[in-house]
Amino acid sequence: MTEVRTKAQLAKSAAAVTNRLTTEQKNHALAVMADALQKEQAAIIDANSADINHGRSKGTSESLLDRLTLTENRIAGIAEGLRQIITLPDPVGLLLESFDRPNGIQVKKISVPLGVIGMIYEARPNVTVDAAGLCLKTGNTVVLRGGSAALETNRKIVEVLRSALQSTDMPADALQLVEDANRSSVDEMLKLNGLLDVVIPRGGASLIRNVVDNATVPVIETGAGICHTFIDESADFAMASDIAFNAKVQRPSVCNAMETLLVHEAFAANHLRELADRFLKAVVQLRGCPRTMEIVAEAQAASDADYATEYNDYILNIRVVRDLDEALSHIAQFGTMHSECIVTENEAHAARFQQEVDAAAVYHNASTRFTDGFEFGFGAEIGISTQKLHARGPMGLPALTSTKYLIHGNGQIRG
Amino acid sequence: MTEVRTKAQLAKSAAAVTNRLTTEQKNHALAVMADALQKEQAAIIDANSADINHGRSKGTSESLLDRLTLTENRIAGIAEGLRQIITLPDPVGLLLESFDRPNGIQVKKISVPLGVIGMIYEARPNVTVDAAGLCLKTGNTVVLRGGSAALETNRKIVEVLRSALQSTDMPADALQLVEDANRSSVDEMLKLNGLLDVVIPRGGASLIRNVVDNATVPVIETGAGICHTFIDESADFAMASDIAFNAKVQRPSVCNAMETLLVHEAFAANHLRELADRFLKAVVQLRGCPRTMEIVAEAQAASDADYATEYNDYILNIRVVRDLDEALSHIAQFGTMHSECIVTENEAHAARFQQEVDAAAVYHNASTRFTDGFEFGFGAEIGISTQKLHARGPMGLPALTSTKYLIHGNGQIRG
Repeated sequence: MTEVRTKAQLAKSAAAVTNRLTTEQKNHALAVMADALQKEQAAIIDANSADINHGRSKGTSESLLDRLTLTENRIAGIAEGLRQIITLPDPVGLLLESFDRPNGIQVKKISVPLGVIGMIYEARPNVTVDAAGLCLKTGNTVVLRGGSAALETNRKIVEVLRSALQSTDMPADALQLVEDANRSSVDEMLKLNGLLDVVIPRGGASLIRNVVDNATVPVIETGAGICHTFIDESADFAMASDIAFNAKVQRPSVCNAMETLLVHEAFAANHLRELADRFLKAVVQLRGCPRTMEIVAEAQAASDADYATEYNDYILNIRVVRDLDEALSHIAQFGTMHSECIVTENEAHAARFQQEVDAAAVYHNASTRFTDGFEFGFGAEIGISTQKLHARGPMGLPALTSTKYLIHGNGQIRG
Repeated sequence: MTEVRTKAQLAKSAAAVTNRLTTEQKNHALAVMADALQKEQAAIIDANSADINHGRSKGTSESLLDRLTLTENRIAGIAEGLRQIITLPDPVGLLLESFDRPNGIQVKKISVPLGVIGMIYEARPNVTVDAAGLCLKTGNTVVLRGGSAALETNRKIVEVLRSALQSTDMPADALQLVEDANRSSVDEMLKLNGLLDVVIPRGGASLIRNVVDNATVPVIETGAGICHTFIDESADFAMASDIAFNAKVQRPSVCNAMETLLVHEAFAANHLRELADRFLKAVVQLRGCPRTMEIVAEAQAASDADYATEYNDYILNIRVVRDLDEALSHIAQFGTMHSECIVTENEAHAARFQQEVDAAAVYHNASTRFTDGFEFGFGAEIGISTQKLHARGPMGLPALTSTKYLIHGNGQIRG
């Protein structure tokens, strides 16, 4: 049997134990895991250095190496993340509904773990720990498949965590790491119907596309975000400028950052030049529609391909639109149903925008950068769903649960 | 452009209208549809006769022809089903959560339609109307792809319904029927990411398997049911006999019918012979484990392949088990997470069974045949989900909704 299948079966067997653990048992396991990470930080940093050196010798970019790097400080932060999860309410075992039927059967709907969760992700080793913590807290088990760039780090982290679990009621097999760095191990995970209950991809557009295109296991699609800010005619200039600037520049590499700014033509006539200067000063490369280029000579021409690209970088498309309708239709055509914003003082326009835009999070007068489990107060986040089934938007612990109907009778049969 | 893509795009455009209709507008459309079905029943029955004749000439089985047949009575029943949907609460537009964050942003989570739903199903023309009613009531639009055996019937029904919608605020394009009877039209639907928000298959195991294996669009897996009844040592004989008999015989062709009976060895020693006689008298063919065959000589040997088969017929596997553990492990191996039952007077065993069995509906002392949206009091059912994402078990109107976060601020940006 392959490594992937073997480990998925171990995770499935463990799930029959983890789904019955009490909140206290699960929290104890998380606390032990957090302590072990810090106690073994030297060994983890050693393993991480091997990944870094290997990456550097392969010419990996410094920004990617930075995301990959673990320090004592970062490990402390990751351990602290686990301890935060302990403080969150356990979403498993809740009585969600209860009703009696005329024939006397009693029906209860309770929350249960999903079962075995497959996580497929890229270079950040913090995802290894976060995902482990979130999955175990919710009584699930997890099969982790991180990027090969972080393999030594992930291997050491999972070794430390599994070893820590030996002293707890949580089976070590609840935590599985696929070490096969070949793409075929991902492909195999995607077809493990009957072993994996869901696969959650986290990473860039091509990773997510591969999962969505090839999985026969249910998937929660996450992350890809082509987000827009629409500045309406009535927008307050200072507010609009701050929100748009924040959405693009505060952290361009993330999914809730803005890729395209839509500007009402009346607002553009008065303010687009000044707005563009602010972006140019922050070394944002501008691409624009013809009307934008008339006002902002520095902008290159934006193509439909540009409007359809998640740059995750200091690049911004700007398009001048006639009115709210044109903004809505641009978003309907190019948006990825993630986060969209209108800046306006016109309440009717805000209401229409929030009603008509089909996205996980629709903002009025606030930056799209708030689409995040922590910013929403969930205390944790396993990802941001951009699909409409099961969970949409930032996913906290409840997104990792399913339900089950328990029916009690005294001999009822169907007539 | 192909028929499938053209119709899906029409449905998507219509979804931007249907998601804003009021409950009254949607209910009015359903009422008009119900009336039209009855007014045009002669034309529908004519079209249905063509399907029946065509099926008969092709040697279609009488039971399938019966399922396909529409009569005035059946059409009245179908129209009545639509009128029932009118009486159900509208699950769209509900405020599900609302919270303010320390930075002053206000977050609301509301229920919204899923968008465009693809229904892929087989010969029963009532599904055409049921699915249309459920999808439109929830502000969704629907692309229907029924079995080719019912094509003329479905064509006429959809023509009648679309024509009826002309007098309402519901766009006729909310209702699309794929008329291309080639398998390739199904394959195309399964890949319509960006146009279909979900595909729901309804039908036999091979139809569902094809959808799950080939869809890149999110799927809600429904239906396949290898359901078990476990008769524990302490079970009351009369109750156990009635529940097991009902689960198998009352309607063997449906997904919540029992396929395998598990009997505790002590109960079997005293009662299996009498139980078997009741099934044999109802002309149920029995297949058994070696210990069953010692008690019931009429039983053929049951193989693992038998235990893994959804017969949907007057065939039953019987297996004698040592104890609850062996019953649980049989169900874990062969169950399809649909409906499972324990008959016992031992509360601890009932509790363990309901805790440990991983299925949508777990029964204590009642027939598995109750797993049904109507029996649960939902007033409607689009299918029974056997997966754990989004919805599990019988799916009523709320299963056809998603959510959306609406965020209001006054200029908040992320620090």
